Parts: sequence; C-alpha cells; structure tokens
Amino acid sequence: MNWQPNRSLSTSLSKQIVQWITEQIQNGEWPVGTKLPPQRKLALSLGVNRSTLQEAFDELKANGLLLSKSGSATYVSNDSWNVLAKQKQTNWQHYIESSIHRANYQTIQLINEFEQDDIIIRLGTGELSPTLLPTAELQKSLSEVHLDGKAIGYSSPQGDFRLRQAIYQYVKKRGIETSPDNICIVSGGLQALQLIALGLLETGSFVFQNRFSYLNSIHTFQSFGMNLYPLADDQLAAGKIEQIRKKKQAILYTIPTLHNPTGISMTLDAKKSLYALSELVQLPLIEDDVYFELLFDEPTPAIKSFDQTGQVLYIGSVSKTLSPGLRIGWVIASTPVIKRLADIKMQMDYGSSAISQQIVEYWLRTGRYEEHIKHLKVELKSRAEYMDNLLKQYFGNIAAWESPQGGFYVWLKFHKPVVTTELFMRLLKKKVLINPGYIYAPNDAQHIRLSFAYSSEEEMKKGIEVLYQEITYMFEAP
Amino acid sequence: MNWQPNRSLSTSLSKQIVQWITEQIQNGEWPVGTKLPPQRKLALSLGVNRSTLQEAFDELKANGLLLSKSGSATYVSNDSWNVLAKQKQTNWQHYIESSIHRANYQTIQLINEFEQDDIIIRLGTGELSPTLLPTAELQKSLSEVHLDGKAIGYSSPQGDFRLRQAIYQYVKKRGIETSPDNICIVSGGLQALQLIALGLLETGSFVFQNRFSYLNSIHTFQSFGMNLYPLADDQLAAGKIEQIRKKKQAILYTIPTLHNPTGISMTLDAKKSLYALSELVQLPLIEDDVYFELLFDEPTPAIKSFDQTGQVLYIGSVSKTLSPGLRIGWVIASTPVIKRLADIKMQMDYGSSAISQQIVEYWLRTGRYEEHIKHLKVELKSRAEYMDNLLKQYFGNIAAWESPQGGFYVWLKFHKPVVTTELFMRLLKKKVLINPGYIYAPNDAQHIRLSFAYSSEEEMKKGIEVLYQEITYMFEAP
Repeated sequence: MNWQPNRSLSTSLSKQIVQWITEQIQNGEWPVGTKLPPQRKLALSLGVNRSTLQEAFDELKANGLLLSKSGSATYVSNDSWNVLAKQKQTNWQHYIESSIHRANYQTIQLINEFEQDDIIIRLGTGELSPTLLPTAELQKSLSEVHLDGKAIGYSSPQGDFRLRQAIYQYVKKRGIETSPDNICIVSGGLQALQLIALGLLETGSFVFQNRFSYLNSIHTFQSFGMNLYPLADDQLAAGKIEQIRKKKQAILYTIPTLHNPTGISMTLDAKKSLYALSELVQLPLIEDDVYFELLFDEPTPAIKSFDQTGQVLYIGSVSKTLSPGLRIGWVIASTPVIKRLADIKMQMDYGSSAISQQIVEYWLRTGRYEEHIKHLKVELKSRAEYMDNLLKQYFGNIAAWESPQGGFYVWLKFHKPVVTTELFMRLLKKKVLINPGYIYAPNDAQHIRLSFAYSSEEEMKKGIEVLYQEITYMFEAP
Repeated sequence: MNWQPNRSLSTSLSKQIVQWITEQIQNGEWPVGTKLPPQRKLALSLGVNRSTLQEAFDELKANGLLLSKSGSATYVSNDSWNVLAKQKQTNWQHYIESSIHRANYQTIQLINEFEQDDIIIRLGTGELSPTLLPTAELQKSLSEVHLDGKAIGYSSPQGDFRLRQAIYQYVKKRGIETSPDNICIVSGGLQALQLIALGLLETGSFVFQNRFSYLNSIHTFQSFGMNLYPLADDQLAAGKIEQIRKKKQAILYTIPTLHNPTGISMTLDAKKSLYALSELVQLPLIEDDVYFELLFDEPTPAIKSFDQTGQVLYIGSVSKTLSPGLRIGWVIASTPVIKRLADIKMQMDYGSSAISQQIVEYWLRTGRYEEHIKHLKVELKSRAEYMDNLLKQYFGNIAAWESPQGGFYVWLKFHKPVVTTELFMRLLKKKVLINPGYIYAPNDAQHIRLSFAYSSEEEMKKGIEVLYQEITYMFEAP
C-alpha cells in the first residue's frame, strides 16, 4: 500500500482518505467483508494521525461502506455493493479465515512491511546491511557466469548438479562427508523447513526445539497441525522424548552454532551428546547451520559430521553471508529423505532460480565465497564491539547480555518484563524496528533480539538512544 | 542416482551392484525400511538388465540386507543394521508414508528424472528447447542489469516494486487495468497455485476444473484434502456449482488460452459467459494465462479484463516464453487476496530470486521480452507444422487431433485405449518420453500430450517413429 494523501491539495486529508477507500471498494480491490488493517497500522502507513483516520472512518460508516464489529476491527460492509450499486462480490475474508495456513504474527507483518521503508532504523533485522553485501563483485560475476540453454531450463529435482558438486566439496571443510546425490538445492533455509514439514511429518507430529526458537516466529509446522515442543536447553530428557514420540512422528530442530535468536554456540561435547541422544531415541535431528561461517573463532565440526546413520538433516544457505536475494540454500540428508524433499519441491515450485544457482556455484567453486566471508567477519566483529559498547553505556544497569561471538545478534535480557507489543509500537512510531522476544517464545516479555549487521554505526547509536528512552518510559510506566 | 556399474571392470555387474547397495546401507544413505525403486526403474537407471539386478537382489536378500514384501516391493531389511553391526536407524519410510504431501505420480517422477538424461527424446515436455531460449541475450542482459545492495537483500512481501510496475504496464496490453499494489511476484505459476491452496482454501474445498486438467498432474490441492471436480467443458451448470459450493469454499481453475493439455482457446464470448457465471454464483476464478503470448493469432482479452469485483485471480509467468530457469511468475488479484498470498509467500521462502526479478524487469521494461516472443512464435509455428505433418503421415488413420493454434502441444486422441503405463514404459525403454493422458484425467487411456517445443525436427521424427511402432504393438496386442 503506497498511496498517501497529498498534503498540498486543498481537499482535507480525511476527505482524500474517504475517496481513496471508496475507490478501493468500487473497483473491487477491497471486496465485501474485507477486514481493514488495524487503525494504528493504517494510520502509520498513510502517514496521518489516528484522529484523521477516525474522521474518515466515521464518514465511511455513515455512508454504509464500512462497519465495525466487536472490538476495534473494521470491515467493508456487506451492503457496500448495494451502496455502490455493484454486483455481489466474493467475501475474501471468509476464504482467508477458513483457510489452511496461519497468517504471520501481526508484529512480523509490520516488520516485513516497515523494513521496506528507507527512513526506518532496523535494529533487529536478520539481514546483512546492503553495504556489507559484495554487490560490485556479484555484479561482476554476473558477466563471468556462463549460461547455457540447458542450465536455464527447468531444473532437475535436486537442483543443478555442478552446484551440488561445489557444495559437496565445500561442506567437507565442515567435516561432512556426503555426495552430490545426497544434496537438494532449496530456495533458502526456510523452504527446507517447509519441505520437511510437508514431506516427512504428519498432523500431530512433535518438533522438539529450544525454548527460544526461530520456529516460533514462523508457522511452517503449526499451520499443518504440528506441535512445537520446547526442551530446556540443558535437559534433553530421553525418557520424556521417547514417551511423547511414541504417539507421532517427531523431529528435533536446533541451530547449534550462533543460535537464532540467542547467539549461543554449542560446544563440541554438547553437540556429541545431542547426537548420541538423537540416535538413542531415534529422533531425527534438523541441524540448521546457516550462521556457522560468521563465528569469529573457528567453528567446531557440524553435528552432521558424526552422522553414520542418516539421522541428521543438515541445512546450509548463502542468505546470511553472500546475499539473501539469491534465495539459495541446501539440505543434506540420506537418500530416501533427499528424494522425498526433491519430489515435494518439484511439486511446489519446479526448482530454484537457475541464474542464482549458477552464481552460487561460481562463488563456491572459485573460492570467492570464502574470501568474501573473511572480510565480512572483520566488519561484523567491529560492528559487534560497537554495539556491545553502546549497550554497556545505556543498558548496563537494567539488562544483561553476552558479548556476541559472531553472527548478527545480541540477545538482550531486561531485568523487568518491559518488552511488550506496546513497546514495539511505540518504537515503530519513532521509526525504530526491533525483534521482540515474544516472537521467539510466547509470553516472553524480557528479551529483544538486536542486530548489529544491518544498521550503520550512526543508526545503531540513534536507534539505541530511542530504545533507551522508550524502555525508560516502560520501566517507569505505572 | 548417477552411479552405474563399470563394464570395464573384471567384477561382474551384479557383484558391483551388491557392493554399491551394501555401501548405501552401511553409510546410512539407505536406512532401515527404505523402499527401493521398482526393479524396472532401478534397472533402467543402473543401465542393466532386470535379470542382472535380480541376481544382485537375490544375493542381498541372502545376506539379510534386503527383503521383499507383498507384491514386488523390496525394502532394506530391519535386520540390516544388525548384519552390518550398526546402530538402529530412523525408519524414513514410515515418516514419508505418514506425511502430509502426496508423492508425485510415478510416471511424473520418471519424467522428472529421465528428462535429465541427454540421450532421451522428450516428446511431451512442457518446456522450450534450449535452442529456442534467448541464451546469448540473457547472458548479455546479465551484465546490463544493475544490482544494488538493497535489491539483493530480502524481498518485500509482494516482490520487487519496479518489476511490479513493469508487469502492471505489460498486462495493460492484455486489457487488464490493475496497479503494482495488486501484483504479487511468485516463483512461477505453480507456486501461485500452492499459495492459493494454503492461503485461501480449506480442507474439503472444491476446485472446479476442465475434465482434462493440469491440476490432475500435480497434488497442490489434493495434498491438503481439497477436491478436484471436473466440469464438462460446455456445460458449467450454475445450479450444480451453487449446490456443491454451499458446503465449502470453492474456486474455479482454467487456462482459457492454449489450455494445457488440450491446446484449446476459449472464444471471447465463452470467456464472457464463464465470467458471468463466476459472478452469478460468486465462485472466484483462477485464470492461468501462462501460454497466451504463444497464440499464433492475436489473443482476445483476458477474463481478468472484465473483472470489476475482484473475482478473478490472474496468473502470468515467463517460464513458457523467456526461461523456466528464472522461476518468475505473478498473480494479480484484489488487495486482501494479494496481501494474503504475499504473507504466505514470506512464510514459505521469503520471496523470489532478486537477480531473476531484476532480469525479468529489464526484459519487460526495455521491450526485449515482446521482441523475443515475436521470433519465438515464428519458430514454434514452423515446428507445429512439422509435427502436424508427421502425425498425418503416421497416425492419420488411428488418431485424431486439432492442428495447433499456438503454444507447445498437440493433444492426440487414439481411436482405441492404448495409452497405458505399459506404453509409457515401453517407450521409456526406447528412450522416448511422452506425457500420457492419464496424468491429466484419471482413467484416460486414449490421449497423449505431445510437444513440438522441445525436440529438434530430427528427434521429433525419430520419436514419432518409435511411438508409431509401440502404438502399433499396443493396437495389435491381445
């Protein structure tokens, strides 16, 4: 939604909004039953005060075009077609509400939307700053990649063979012995999870995970009736797992290196214990390893490197290192699992972008990828220190955190439960976006995932200052 | 699976196969319970006779590594880990069999796999020949596309704004008045269907469609408990639809121009009637329009162009025209629908390849896209005539078909029900791939979808000759 009222016109802002909404209804863009965005969200995106929007809504309700139901939600009225002398229309809201997939949390929808706004300070974003992406080298490599007619046709189910060969070589350095036949290219790590949900699990399956988990912030498993089941980080009781998993297929998900959102990396011993447990209770394990290259120290081998029985599904990606826009990741698993995931992928999108696959193959094969990561780590380390110092300056007395060991994130824990949707919205009004802890663990109100990877030092400073003001307000609020 | 026994070794082929399968089990690639591919498929892919494979299987069974269950299916034995003194392993076959998404039909799995084989003649493929893709110009455009750091980050939910602007301009020529805000970029038309299934429909929903339908060849809707409901092409009875759709949300799917697989294009009047019906019974309509550019004559306006009420979900794509490897398509729909599909897309793969989006934007904006299509149509027309003549020569007496009006396909109907899995497998043995009618309508045994878009004239001739031999065999078989 890019339209905003024009302040230079003589027509009042609220009249302009009335006209615009009427047009949306008239031309079928907002059919009967459409639920309007919450007022605060709509006001923000139209760049007007809530009172101005309220005025427009009042007029539209008087016209019979909008109506409010219980609570504050506003809908396009069932009579709107009558009012506008239009045909009856499909009630899309009915379709949406009864459909299978869950909507993103409203907080995440807002994050996705406002991340597109250039003047916002993105203090929580899980993404490298455009200045850290090797844009010029990527541009250069576009002319060095050699396309041929076959490569730009439909992909083979598991993805480009040369790319799989390059990945097979690359993961050897991670201790993983596999073969190109055991690799499936995916459009980023998230798609790997989607394929696992639809291709290996059933309604009612259990997905064991850490208490704070990336999986809570998405609905990949929950949309299909699967249960996320948190395990205390230090207490993976085999008996408990066995008891639960007797009922349904189950799997364990973790990010052993630079965990999202907590930033924790498991020791080698901890990895070995987890693998042993997984084997003992025959609970397959998803090792999401998309951050490991960004560890400031040398990483220990992947859990997948211990895997003799095809127990571990390993996920890698270039989204956190080279460019998220390429949308290239990979899964490494045993043959029946890989064939299955590849078959589902062919039924979902017929494979990943051939051009993106060619580019990643080129970067991996020529060593440019690892060269780039070396530089990137130096930059990230300096940013991490900068943010760490800022936090000490502002939050030393009211919060705790570990100094980052790599990656993007600081997992800030406030001494009081102040991280609420109210805080999130107050910050958004001041053009600062954070990732609140409650999207990673329901009911959490103490954590914020901060990122030092996206904002410039100047923006970090400004953002942290705004955060400090709003946090202070929350601490002092009655 | 690329391994094949080495004929130059002194070890017998069957021994080599025994060793290879043992290794697969030993290193965890084929865990306990893995269902082996059918013998004929495995023999084909190993390049050996079935008797050689049978010999290897017999030895592996004697070793306790494999076992046969009811029918001909062969599994990795539950004792294999014991035999190999290994740990217990996850039974992936259990996971796969109880999971949500349906597997592709075996015929389609074979098609997907054998399409990768360079010496196969692809007589049914829904894809342009590599020689018809503008590979050199695409290569050139790679260096003309200008990347910037923001564009290669994570995408906005609906996709690159400039691409949406270019599409908005492009579809005006199709009679469609929309706005960039009502467009969502997807990774090809198939993903659009996936988003519609998960974001708008519910378990038990009805998807009305033509009797022969692309949807029957995929499991996008069926995997989530939705019903495909064929309507006779000329008899879309409103009463019947209304009665059925009272129970559940419903939608109608069609390809009005150059229908896949039948090649039929609806007249303008037929389109208007269908739209009127859809509005009358408030049954939203998916207009899959990915072939329209390839009509030899001028196409009539899209159904979407009549749409005043947000009733039509329009799908476009460059996969059939520019390159399937780009994986770029689009959906045009009313605001709530587009917001919903974009939100689901963000939860599935965080957007489509940024590089692919940039390339398509460049081709659309500069007019290169339409220029390319002009040339492409000339080529396709000449290929269509060539195939039409071949068919007259071989099948004039035993089959009927319409001369193609554009696109890729001839929909060949034999006078007798000879198009069976047996025919498909016999052709595959002779290295000819067809798309049999039964993947588009269950129980059909009379049709083949042939394509003149992929094979060279020489291959078409050879493939049609082989088809003729095998069809003759089927006609004469007792």
